[in-house]
Amino acid sequence: MRWAVPVAELRPGPAAQDIPAVPAAPAAGLLVLPVVGVGEVARGCNLASVLWDALQTCGAGLLDGDVLVVTQKVVSKAEGRLVELDPADPEAKVRLVESEAVRVLRRRGELRITETVHGFVCANAGVDLSNVEDGHACLLPLDPDRSARRLRDALRALAAVSVAVVISDTFGRAWRRGVTDVAIGCAGIAAILDLRGEADAMGRELVATEVCVADEIAAAAELVMGKDRFVPAAIVRGVERGWFRRSSVAGEVVRPPAEDLFR
Amino acid sequence: MRWAVPVAELRPGPAAQDIPAVPAAPAAGLLVLPVVGVGEVARGCNLASVLWDALQTCGAGLLDGDVLVVTQKVVSKAEGRLVELDPADPEAKVRLVESEAVRVLRRRGELRITETVHGFVCANAGVDLSNVEDGHACLLPLDPDRSARRLRDALRALAAVSVAVVISDTFGRAWRRGVTDVAIGCAGIAAILDLRGEADAMGRELVATEVCVADEIAAAAELVMGKDRFVPAAIVRGVERGWFRRSSVAGEVVRPPAEDLFR
Repeated sequence: MRWAVPVAELRPGPAAQDIPAVPAAPAAGLLVLPVVGVGEVARGCNLASVLWDALQTCGAGLLDGDVLVVTQKVVSKAEGRLVELDPADPEAKVRLVESEAVRVLRRRGELRITETVHGFVCANAGVDLSNVEDGHACLLPLDPDRSARRLRDALRALAAVSVAVVISDTFGRAWRRGVTDVAIGCAGIAAILDLRGEADAMGRELVATEVCVADEIAAAAELVMGKDRFVPAAIVRGVERGWFRRSSVAGEVVRPPAEDLFR
Repeated sequence: MRWAVPVAELRPGPAAQDIPAVPAAPAAGLLVLPVVGVGEVARGCNLASVLWDALQTCGAGLLDGDVLVVTQKVVSKAEGRLVELDPADPEAKVRLVESEAVRVLRRRGELRITETVHGFVCANAGVDLSNVEDGHACLLPLDPDRSARRLRDALRALAAVSVAVVISDTFGRAWRRGVTDVAIGCAGIAAILDLRGEADAMGRELVATEVCVADEIAAAAELVMGKDRFVPAAIVRGVERGWFRRSSVAGEVVRPPAEDLFR
C-alpha cells in the first residue's frame, strides 16, 4: 500500500470520493508533477504543512519513493531569510551581494560571480529580488541540506510516507547561455550517483561517470514550474529505489577549490 | 487525434491488440519514458527507423508534441563518427583530443578542458571511448542541430507525427562535481525560453530569466537512461505547446567567447 494512511483519515477536508486519484509513475519511467495551489509563504510558516495541503488538493498526492523538489525561494521565505533593501539606492544590492559572498570571482557591471558560504559559485551570491516584496531581498538558506532534511522529516510525520527532498535554485553556467535549476540541498536521495566500477553496455569498466542526479532532478522539476507562475514545488515520481540514501549537496556536489580548474 | 496514423497500418508487426497502450502525460505534468530495445547502432544505420521500431515495441509510442531525446553516442555512430585509436598507445587519445579541439582551456594529467569546433566547452573535445568497440573512439556529430533536424524530419515521414528532437551529451561543469546531460543539438523546440519582459508572481518584470529548457529536457531524459544500461533515447511527453518552435543549440545556447567570463 503506497498511501500509508488514507488522506481522509489524516485531516478534515474534502470527502474521500472528491479527492482526485493519485497518478502512478509508469513502470520504467518518471512522472513530473507541479505542486499547484501553494499560497504566499511567510516567515515562520510551516512549509511542510503548506506543501502537504497543496499536494492533496491538487491531486499529485505524495507516495513513498517520491522526490519532492522545492524551490529555494519558499524555503528561504519560510526560514525568514529576507533582508530589507532600499529600492531607492541602486548600489544597495551590490553591497549586499558582496557582503554575502566569501569571494568574488568575476565582476561585470552590477553582476558579480561569487562563491557563497556554502561553496556554491553563482551570480550575485544567490541574492534575489524576483518574487519578493519591494524593499526586500531574499538570501539563500543558511544550510539547504538541513532545510531538506527538516522538510523530509516533517513530511514523514504529516503524511506517513518516506520521500526524498531536493531544494532547487536557478543558476547560470559558464560557457552556456540560459539558466537551469540545480540542487542546493537534498535529503534522502543520492546527490551523485557513482557509476565508477560498473560496466558500460560493452562490458568495460566506466572510468569517470559520477552523475549528479540531484541536479538532473531539479532540472526536470523546473520544466513544470516555470518562472512566471507561482509553482514553488514539484514531485518527481518513479526514481530508481537504489538512489535513495543519506546524502548532501554540500558533501557531494560542491567541488573543493583545490580540485577546481576555474577559480 | 494524437496518433495520426494507427501503428498497425504503418508497417507489418504485432496485431493492434498486442500493442501496449501509449501512456498520456498528465494534464499539468510530464512523463519521461525510456526507449528500450534499441539494438547496436552501426554506421549508416537509419536511426529514425531503429528508434521508431523501438518506440512502438516498448510501448512508449510517439505522439504529436513529444520531445525525443537521443544521446550523442548513437547519433555519432549512425553518422559514422568513429575513428581508429591504437589501444596500445597511451598518448593516442590525448593527440586525438587536441586535434579535435579548437582551443585547450585547461590541462590536468590526461584531461583536457577544450572548446570544440561547435563552441562547446567540455572535457576531451567530446572524444569518448565508453560504449565504443575497442580500438575506436567516438567523435561528436559534425552539426548536432542538423542531426536533430534530420531525425525530426525522418520521424515525421515515418510516424506521421510532429515531434521535437534533442541530441544530448554528458558534460562536466565548473564548480560542481558530477556530470549531467545537456543538449548539443535540437530541432522543433526552443533551446532557450526567454521570459524577459514577462511578469513574476508579484507582477513585476523578470529582468534576466532565460531558461535553457533544452538542457533541462536532456537532464530529465538522462534520469531514465542511466550510463550502464543501453538506453540511448527517451521521450519527454507533456512539454508546453508554446515551447515548440524553430531553434538551435548553436544559435541560442553556445555562449560567444566575447560575453564569456571564464575562458
